[in-house]
Amino acid sequence: MTTIDLNSDLGEGYGAWRMGDDAAMLGIVSSANIACGFHAGDPAGLLATLREAARRGVAVGAHVSYPDRVGFGRRAMDVAPDDLKADVIYQIGALQGLARAAGTRVSYVKPHGALYNTIAHDARQADAVIAAVLVVDPGLVMMGLAGAPVLDRARTAGLRVVAEAFADRAYGPDGTLVPRSAQGAVLDDHDAIAARMVRLATEGVVEAQNGTPLRLGADSICVHGDSPGAVAMAGQIRAALAAAGVRIAAFAL
Amino acid sequence: MTTIDLNSDLGEGYGAWRMGDDAAMLGIVSSANIACGFHAGDPAGLLATLREAARRGVAVGAHVSYPDRVGFGRRAMDVAPDDLKADVIYQIGALQGLARAAGTRVSYVKPHGALYNTIAHDARQADAVIAAVLVVDPGLVMMGLAGAPVLDRARTAGLRVVAEAFADRAYGPDGTLVPRSAQGAVLDDHDAIAARMVRLATEGVVEAQNGTPLRLGADSICVHGDSPGAVAMAGQIRAALAAAGVRIAAFAL
Amino acid sequence: MTTIDLNSDLGEGYGAWRMGDDAAMLGIVSSANIACGFHAGDPAGLLATLREAARRGVAVGAHVSYPDRVGFGRRAMDVAPDDLKADVIYQIGALQGLARAAGTRVSYVKPHGALYNTIAHDARQADAVIAAVLVVDPGLVMMGLAGAPVLDRARTAGLRVVAEAFADRAYGPDGTLVPRSAQGAVLDDHDAIAARMVRLATEGVVEAQNGTPLRLGADSICVHGDSPGAVAMAGQIRAALAAAGVRIAAFAL
Amino acid sequence: MTTIDLNSDLGEGYGAWRMGDDAAMLGIVSSANIACGFHAGDPAGLLATLREAARRGVAVGAHVSYPDRVGFGRRAMDVAPDDLKADVIYQIGALQGLARAAGTRVSYVKPHGALYNTIAHDARQADAVIAAVLVVDPGLVMMGLAGAPVLDRARTAGLRVVAEAFADRAYGPDGTLVPRSAQGAVLDDHDAIAARMVRLATEGVVEAQNGTPLRLGADSICVHGDSPGAVAMAGQIRAALAAAGVRIAAFAL
Repeated sequence: MTTIDLNSDLGEGYGAWRMGDDAAMLGIVSSANIACGFHAGDPAGLLATLREAARRGVAVGAHVSYPDRVGFGRRAMDVAPDDLKADVIYQIGALQGLARAAGTRVSYVKPHGALYNTIAHDARQADAVIAAVLVVDPGLVMMGLAGAPVLDRARTAGLRVVAEAFADRAYGPDGTLVPRSAQGAVLDDHDAIAARMVRLATEGVVEAQNGTPLRLGADSICVHGDSPGAVAMAGQIRAALAAAGVRIAAFAL
Repeated sequence: MTTIDLNSDLGEGYGAWRMGDDAAMLGIVSSANIACGFHAGDPAGLLATLREAARRGVAVGAHVSYPDRVGFGRRAMDVAPDDLKADVIYQIGALQGLARAAGTRVSYVKPHGALYNTIAHDARQADAVIAAVLVVDPGLVMMGLAGAPVLDRARTAGLRVVAEAFADRAYGPDGTLVPRSAQGAVLDDHDAIAARMVRLATEGVVEAQNGTPLRLGADSICVHGDSPGAVAMAGQIRAALAAAGVRIAAFAL
Repeated sequence: MTTIDLNSDLGEGYGAWRMGDDAAMLGIVSSANIACGFHAGDPAGLLATLREAARRGVAVGAHVSYPDRVGFGRRAMDVAPDDLKADVIYQIGALQGLARAAGTRVSYVKPHGALYNTIAHDARQADAVIAAVLVVDPGLVMMGLAGAPVLDRARTAGLRVVAEAFADRAYGPDGTLVPRSAQGAVLDDHDAIAARMVRLATEGVVEAQNGTPLRLGADSICVHGDSPGAVAMAGQIRAALAAAGVRIAAFAL
Repeated sequence: MTTIDLNSDLGEGYGAWRMGDDAAMLGIVSSANIACGFHAGDPAGLLATLREAARRGVAVGAHVSYPDRVGFGRRAMDVAPDDLKADVIYQIGALQGLARAAGTRVSYVKPHGALYNTIAHDARQADAVIAAVLVVDPGLVMMGLAGAPVLDRARTAGLRVVAEAFADRAYGPDGTLVPRSAQGAVLDDHDAIAARMVRLATEGVVEAQNGTPLRLGADSICVHGDSPGAVAMAGQIRAALAAAGVRIAAFAL
């Protein structure tokens, strides 16, 4: 039976501020990328999301970020590798503590936002993140963009890696994401998106913007969770996968 | 042979800002209360202090605080117990991650500043801290003020506790600290302080301000480390204890 | 013609996080208490709200707070008077800069959350806030809870003051707010609330929880703006006041 | 009589943390670049420095920064122009409020750290800073690196500008600073530095690393203040200038 993971970014509220519907998304996804306080997430809010993830049997990943709360971790920062390494260790440790308190554990690490984009190509920052994961727990899985060199670097360094595809993003013929600023970069036809993800799960193929079939080698699908419409879309993707006989399951728990 | 622990607050820089001389103090104390980022301590600076503690064989405690960096954790805050509990878990977890990366581990927890003072008498906040320690790792030792009810509560809850005395503070006849605002609250005669600590370690007794001998039941002596003079005083206390045949050793490692 | 002011807390998003619907509320109220960055509000978000306030002709107040973003300024903090005074000056100045950039100006100051509650009775913190306002601009109006001693202190110190009543809160027979924890403290019958506010505006009277008529001496009515339902309620209050021939206008612009 | 300005970065403590000796430096310089809270500076500490600047008759500049306290504003950040503009307005306004409370005023703006370096060449961020200054107060002077295009952009936009030279930095033959990572980038011979600054003030010339005489067109000399040695060097530069008949005076007050 074909299996694929569904992941989403959760725990992204902060104090009195909410972001998305964590409880609803935890009923849909198999893996939760949970903020660690640097771009979002206060301890009490994170603990509540972790408890719900534990109750639902959803795998937990540390969604580590640059220290930039007001920018939601979306702004590139020229952080020195030693500082970045320590920042990532701190965040993973903090989430591990909360996860233990919630009766679960951190299984993987997924860099967030600008850090995610930067390490896809910047070897210095990529190596800092990889070194941080290795020194905290070499059993943690590293999640990254399918096709990005950072996954090869992580694998070479001794980490197990998982590649992800984005459900609602268009791909160029070379397998890279079409930049958000370009036309058609973000897909919004829920039926088409669900059909794409079924093909990805069953055939391993997603069509690039120009029609070229791409083999992404993705083991996980990232669905967004920060709007009510996003919850509906995630639910539709899950339903379409199930209807196609695809099992949704975490790659690590 | 009589044994006592010497502890000090370390890791209290933040980014470009320094506080005290961690390396010097780590050559003197047997236990280091290391900041966790809420009142002081950036990840890279904490990692450096933890590495030095590991190299020196100094035990590590999580010096947890209210989230108040600009106030250095010294201002009472009416934090709800559930928020406080999650804040403490987060901080312990973060320091555990960094400690693991530095080749050591967190052995105990010591609340910092206003939190330390508040939980000495406020049962709601005390119980939140105790619950946090228990859920992260019930093997962690809780350090607190000798004679404070919080230690009884922690012991009853199942934690091992360690009571500490302050080297440079005067005590009232009831065993409480003379408030900093009162005359003579802070001692500054290094010879007298060293002699007091030798008596504490060898006889278990310290004299109150009015001369009353007090049995504090302290297993650890807190020495300050945030000034060059403080390093000299800590060194003098250590030397006096050694000359009196007292062994300096961590209560937990 | 009877005139009253309607005020609401705005500018309370932070970075990617939203709180309430500022644009909708600015179509209803005559005065906007705008966050200054300490409990909520990032500069770009504040500037956008200030521009809309300027466009709508809504008066602007500095909604100053303790430095506690994760607690949304709702937690009592034992801030030293000199620190509090400087914190308030900093916040007023920052909002004045943004207001100038938006083509408007800060007309009044309203302390937020726990600071609002604390200074209602704590003379040390109240005097620190009053001193801050005086030194930045003695022409600024101080807004506070109708009946609270802080308004007398501010008036004595030379500030013009404005007293406010809360639309959706029950009052005790002594004119104080029924604590939120008590039954019936928060009113939710929109028709009854609107009728109460019409009576307040036209007769100067609001009924206490036990039926006692109270003369609050309020020149402004605070309506909440942090939920879609709140916008509807605020609109209904405004409509009821208008239908009763009451003019809605800022006390200062 | 030849006149030149001496400026230094001050107000760079944060809460319990100190940085440099503001009081000593305020006895030496004619202009103080005072932090605004984003890279350093808590309100009470800033107010104290501003009061001393007012007492000494030292001109005050707003030392605006990226929002990166843990990185001391030294890390490049990809901040969107609208966000950066609002950040700069907020900081200038906050310092203006504190300056007013201290009996002085903000006369100029000097971007700090990574922002200073970035806008020297990045037109998008430069224009955001310039627009912020113009909208808060077009009478504010903009200080920047002698020879940097940002000064031309600011002048064209209508701002008065002041160019500064760095006392202890080596220059390339093209008038740019030798990068800190290169050999000899930072000068440490106090006598030679003082002599260089005398020549700069009297002849308008400083020698590049390879001996080429450079006309920097600098109206101000930046001296560092973050170490005891720096205070001594600043004092020596001041004394050498005075001995050469150069008057030290602020360009704006």
